[in-house]
Order: sequence, then structure tokens, then C-alpha cells
Amino acid sequence: MASKPVNTAGLRGQSAGETALCTVGKSGSGLTYCGYDVADLAENATFEEVAYLLFNGELPNQAQLAAYKSALKPMRDLPDAVKSVLKLIPKDTHPMDVMRTGCSMLGNIEPEKDFSEQNQAANRLLAAFPAIMCYWYKFSHDGVEIDCMTDEDSLGGHFLRLLNQEEPSEQHKRVMDVSLILYAEHEFNASTFTARVCASTLSDMFSCITGAIGTLRGPLHGGANEAAMDMIEKFKSPTDAKEQMSGMLARKEKIMGFGHAIYRTSDPRNTVIKAWSEKLAAENGDTSLYDISVACEEFMWDTKKLFCNADFFHASTYNYMGIPTKLFTPIFVCSRLTGWAAHVMEQRANNRIIRPSADYTGSEPRKVQPISAR
Amino acid sequence: MASKPVNTAGLRGQSAGETALCTVGKSGSGLTYCGYDVADLAENATFEEVAYLLFNGELPNQAQLAAYKSALKPMRDLPDAVKSVLKLIPKDTHPMDVMRTGCSMLGNIEPEKDFSEQNQAANRLLAAFPAIMCYWYKFSHDGVEIDCMTDEDSLGGHFLRLLNQEEPSEQHKRVMDVSLILYAEHEFNASTFTARVCASTLSDMFSCITGAIGTLRGPLHGGANEAAMDMIEKFKSPTDAKEQMSGMLARKEKIMGFGHAIYRTSDPRNTVIKAWSEKLAAENGDTSLYDISVACEEFMWDTKKLFCNADFFHASTYNYMGIPTKLFTPIFVCSRLTGWAAHVMEQRANNRIIRPSADYTGSEPRKVQPISAR
Ligand SMILES: CC(C)(COP(=O)(O)OP(=O)(O)OC[C@H]1O[C@@H](n2cnc3c(N)ncnc32)[C@H](O)[C@@H]1OP(=O)(O)O)[C@@H](O)C(=O)NCCC(=O)NCCS
Ligand SMILES: CC(C)(COP(=O)(O)OP(=O)(O)OC[C@H]1O[C@@H](n2cnc3c(N)ncnc32)[C@H](O)[C@@H]1OP(=O)(O)O)[C@@H](O)C(=O)NCCC(=O)NCCS
Repeated sequence: MASKPVNTAGLRGQSAGETALCTVGKSGSGLTYCGYDVADLAENATFEEVAYLLFNGELPNQAQLAAYKSALKPMRDLPDAVKSVLKLIPKDTHPMDVMRTGCSMLGNIEPEKDFSEQNQAANRLLAAFPAIMCYWYKFSHDGVEIDCMTDEDSLGGHFLRLLNQEEPSEQHKRVMDVSLILYAEHEFNASTFTARVCASTLSDMFSCITGAIGTLRGPLHGGANEAAMDMIEKFKSPTDAKEQMSGMLARKEKIMGFGHAIYRTSDPRNTVIKAWSEKLAAENGDTSLYDISVACEEFMWDTKKLFCNADFFHASTYNYMGIPTKLFTPIFVCSRLTGWAAHVMEQRANNRIIRPSADYTGSEPRKVQPISAR
Repeated sequence: MASKPVNTAGLRGQSAGETALCTVGKSGSGLTYCGYDVADLAENATFEEVAYLLFNGELPNQAQLAAYKSALKPMRDLPDAVKSVLKLIPKDTHPMDVMRTGCSMLGNIEPEKDFSEQNQAANRLLAAFPAIMCYWYKFSHDGVEIDCMTDEDSLGGHFLRLLNQEEPSEQHKRVMDVSLILYAEHEFNASTFTARVCASTLSDMFSCITGAIGTLRGPLHGGANEAAMDMIEKFKSPTDAKEQMSGMLARKEKIMGFGHAIYRTSDPRNTVIKAWSEKLAAENGDTSLYDISVACEEFMWDTKKLFCNADFFHASTYNYMGIPTKLFTPIFVCSRLTGWAAHVMEQRANNRIIRPSADYTGSEPRKVQPISAR
């Protein structure tokens, strides 16, 4: 693909600081967490290992991992006051608003009193997010007050169990784990950057994460996986998909799940999640959603040289796992929390308040006229 | 003051976009909103006129102002579900966490369904913030469920009435109005920048404002007025103030309420609020808090060439008005909401997702080792 003209709007390509956590779009490896290629991690590690890596800079050994998982397990339940708040949130609320409010409320009940508690706060959110999502979902949709504790070994399994109230299959647990790994960290993306700007005023962890959730909510960012699902389920066939997308492009609509601010020819997460979508489709028997997705991918590349980002094949993957579309972006929260919190800690360790300037385009200096003379 | 070496950490001095709303630190006038000098507005306008200006680009005439105030008045009350949430928040919670949670919860109950509702959402928050702050404060501290509606003409008066449950004096209403004007807008400060980053993903107004509140909370930003109060009330006299500040500087502590990311020799808001502090001190009879504050100002300039920012004399001013220290930063929220929302609207009108890059300082590429080999 030809290189694009430089356009620095949206701070594109401008450095806003340093990080040791992640590289995006460097040659050789598209995406690394603390030096590890994301595909290597997705193949050879679990989500808890990746969380440990992001918080500590190194992968855990067996004893460290066991200790970490034992520490997280009892933190899965929610304080009563948080449950009461979740019960007050209507069924038709955007689930990302629920996550935002649940996170904010947890910060009222169990505040991070000073930065020595930052790991505790991050781990608490990591363990509690599946319950925030599922407690609200089950209460508002089915009228059931679920038990927020499970014996599931992994956070991915814990989430699936809370959601379906039954033992998840080994395969679904593994796919969820891979998905959580793929979404965990992505350098200075908009939600992470929000968390860092917030952290730079020396605000608390819950404020940083609450702000990041609100930013991830946007359809140009985390909201894209839901929007992609809404789109592909309207397509009746691969041919229909191509026709309808043609119309969308002609109307200058953005196709969600395609394109990226940094990657230019492919998103390294796509290969991994696409393979899982294909596998689940084959086992499911009905491959049409996968086939339609592949048709979209081909069409977008052929016509616009736009490629699938991490979100596109997540849509069909989650759908094959029976996950309600409205929970797609909240799952992203459960994962990206690790990257956000790691960036907050990194910002705090070498901080200066993030306060850019702006180019002024407004009115010349003028004097206030008495209101009677306006 | 000698010009400082260029240090672009924290995006200092780097443009992150365009705005027609505000200039900060341009020669001639230190701070303008839509072309009007902030001191001119503080002298010759009311807060509602400034809110109108920021949302519409022009000051209102008499009919427009009357219509705007009539529209805001019925929006002052809170939905029952928001009140229920506020009642669940403990007394010792940081009041900025309360504002953050109240804002987030209001967004669940009355979401901004699409951008055509952005003015409605901004006005709703403007009208409702005093009640969010005072309803929680009065319930958690005094066990009283206050009526959130008042007949006060202005939002400043409305807030004072909710807080004190009695008719505020004309003078206090005027000082509150001036304070709300001074705090309303300040270009790409950290909280406003958070709101814009959030808006750039096309997220909703409540997410943008919730994130901005969390950012303003930090002691390097809005939290400075409370921190300044905590400091000056410990000083016994002007001499004691100078001695203790000497020690703080020797210990490399930051003195809250001093210094600024952009201004180099003075903050134009300080003259205005300092004059009010002096006036209230004189009327109060006990001028010691003001005298101590002046001693701090002189000392910091003489020793470090650091000057008072907007927050420093706000501390004594609010204290003379009998406002509890913990509500200082929430009042800032009630005001800055106008700037935040105006920036969200401006970002949306010419959007590209704000996604900078980072300089990588981390590990070289490495391979995941089996956990048994770590
Ligand atoms: C991710 C995204 C926000 C990056 O934004 P960006 O850095 O401003 O994008 P670019 O500068 O690379 O865009 C180049 C051109 O391609 C277009 N384009 C980019 N992604 C597109 C998409 N998904 N559908 C249609 N057109 C798209 C842009 O509109 C732009 O066209 P223009 O030059 O005529 O204005 C953008 O690709 C997008 O909106 N994608 C859809 C949402 C999504 O999937 N987000 C999840 C990201 S992980
Ligand atoms: C506002 C503030 C965050 C700006 O940060 P900044 O842009 O990084 O500040 P500068 O680059 O101008 O700082 C220059 C030097 O003065 C010092 N300094 C700035 N403000 C100071 C203060 N209030 N007390 C003591 N030292 C201060 C800095 O530590 C720095 O010293 P260094 O060069 O030895 O590191 C900073 O002045 C501050 O922390 N002030 C106190 C908090 C406050 O009042 N915030 C409200 C702002 S409206």
C-alpha cells in the first residue's frame, strides 16, 4: 500500500510519551507486549499470565502464577452497595455505561487511598469486572440475582460461567482466554491515552479506568466489535454482503471492524481470532456467518485496501459462542483493564501532567457589551 | 522570568488540535473565552451568559438569556434512581468520586441517544450538578434528603441554597457567579483534553464528562484548591507560613495552588479572585486567612518565581463563604462542565480519533518460554 500523506490530526504519528509495555506496527512483529509477540502469547500463555506480565514486566513462573490466581479468586464478588447500584440500572442501558458506573461505584466503596494500593486496585477490578457485567445483565434481563462467585480456575471461564450459569466447555474457555489476551494491551490507543491523561493529574486508579471505559465505548474504538456484529447479521449471504457494503461505501459510511490508526496492511490479532472463528463455525455446522465475514474481508481489501482489525472476526467468534452482542465491548473492558492499569502505573512512575496546546481559530479579542445593547 | 528549556514531556507546547473556544497565555490578554477577556466577563456577565457563550459562540441577548434560564430551571432535580445511588455512597467518599458516579448514573437514566441531543445533555448536567453534590452531601453528612428544587434565579444561588438550606446573600451569590465564570473554560487542560479524547471515539456526552471529572480530581489539577486550603489552614501566621513553606520546598514538595503549565508569570484569574478574598476577609473581620495567603504568594514569588494560579485564592474565598473544603473541587466541576461540553461539541464537529504514538523503551523481542522452564 502506498504511504499516505502525513496528517497529524488526532496526534497521529506524534509521540506523547514513553512506554515499555507495548509496540504496535513495528517491522518484524506487529504487536508485542513487553517484548513478546501477541500471537506467541495467544498460543503459549493464559490471560492471567499476560495480566501478570503487564503488571510486573515479566511472565510468572509456576509458583508466581498459582499465587496470583489464588489472590484474584476471592476478589471476584461485589460489595452489596455495588450490587444495589447495578440493580438500579435499567435493562435498556448501554452495557458500557453499566461498566463505567460499576467501576466508579466500586471506587467509592473500596477507594485506592494512595498509590501503594495501585496493584490491589488493578487486581480488584480485574477480578470484579465479570461480575459487574453479568450481575447487571442477569438481573435486568432475567430478574435473577446471581451468585458472583464461581470455582472456575480462569477469569475467562469465570465470566462464561456467570453468564450462562453452567459449566463452560474447555474449548470456549480457551477461546475466551485467547480473546482476552488479544485485547489486553495496545500502546497509546484512545482509551489507554485517556487513562494516562487522567493519571497524569495524580488522580486515582478508579477515575483513570472509569474514564478509559467511557472512551472505549465509542464506535470508532471498542464499540466496533458490536457494530460489526450488527452489520454482518443483516447480511443474508456473501453476495448480499458485498452488495450492501458497496452501498455503504458509496454513502461514505464507515465499515466497523476495518482500518486502523497505526497498522497499514493488516492487524496481527486478526489472523488469530479469524482462525478461531473458522474453527467454531465448522463445529457449529452453520458456517454462514463466517463465510459472510470472509466475503466482507475480501471485498474491503479489494475495493479499499482496508483490512480487518481485531474487532471484525471477534464478532462472529463471540456469536458462535452464544455471547449476546451487547456484551462484546464489556468483555473488551475485562481484558483491556490490564493494559490501562499498567499504563497508569507507568505514567505515575515518571509523571508530568499531560497538557497540550491548541491552535486558536476563534473570534478576535472583543469587549463584553451590556446585555441591553446586544 | 527567563525562558525555560524546551521540555515537551506531557505534550507541553505541542498542538493537539484546534479550538475556537479559548486562548490561554497569548500576549495582551491572558485568558479569553470566544474572544472575551475573562476579567471582562467576570465583571460584566453572569455564569449563565458564559455557559450560553461557550455553547453557542455568542453572548445571549436579554430574550435569549431569559429563555435559557427558564429552560435550565426545571432540569435541576434528579431522577429517583440517581438519588438512590447517591444515598448508597458512604460519607467518607471523596466528593469527586461522588460527582463522577452521579454523572455516570444520570447517563444511564437519561442517555444521550444521539448527537442531536448534545445540547440537551450538556444543559441537563449543568442544571443537575449542584443537586448531585448537595443531595449526597446533605444525606451522608446530616441524614437529610433535601428537596433538589429551588427558586433561585442563578445556578450559583441555587447551589448555595441547596448547601445551606437558606437564602444566600446577594454578595455570596455574586462571588459564586464570578468563581463559576473564572473556572468555566481553559483550553486543552488535562480534564478538557480527556473529554476530547473520549469524544474522538464518538462516545456519548456522559462518558466524556465522567472521564473529565476523574481527571479534574487529581491534586495537580482541580484538586489543588482543596489542597491549598488544607495547607493554609495549618499555618498560624504569615511568618509561620513562610517558615513552613521553606521546609516544604526544601523537601521538594509541590505547593498546591502555585505554578502553571502555560502561564509563566501570572494567572489572570488570580487578580479577580484575590480581590474577592480580600473583600470577604475585610467584611468577615478576621483577615488572617487572607493575610496568610498573601504571605504565601509573596514568599513563592520571591523564592521560586512561582505565582498563584486560579486555585490559590479560591481556597480562602470559599472558606470565607462557609463552604466545606471537600466541596471545592466539585464546585469546579459545576463550572468547568461548560468548557468540557463545548469542547466535546467542537471535537465532534471536526473529528479524527485522538491516537498518538509512544517511544518504546521496553524489552527486545523475546519468545515465550514454557512455564515449567521459567
Ligand atoms: C480505526 C480508525 C478510527 C482509524 O482512523 P484514522 O487513523 O483516522 O484512519 P485513516 O487515516 O487510516 O483513514 C484513511 C481513510 O480511510 C477511510 N477509512 C478508514 N477506516 C474506514 C472504514 N472502516 N470504513 C470506511 N472507510 C474507512 C477514512 O475515512 C479515510 O478516508 P478519507 O481519507 O477519505 O477521509 C478508522 O479506521 C475507523 O473508523 N474504523 C472503523 C471503526 C473500527 O473498526 N474501530 C476499531 C479500531 S481497532
Ligand atoms: C500546574 C503544574 C502541574 C504545571 O506543571 P508543569 O508544566 O510540569 O510545571 P513546570 O514545567 O512549569 O515546572 C517547572 C519547575 O517548577 C516546579 N514547580 C512547578 N510548580 C510548583 C509548585 N506548585 N510547587 C513547587 N514547585 C513547583 C516544578 O517541579 C519544576 O521543577 P523542576 O524543573 O525542578 O522539575 C505545576 O505547577 C504544579 O504541580 N502546581 C501545583 C498544583 C496546582 O496548583 N495545580 C493547579 C493548576 S491550575
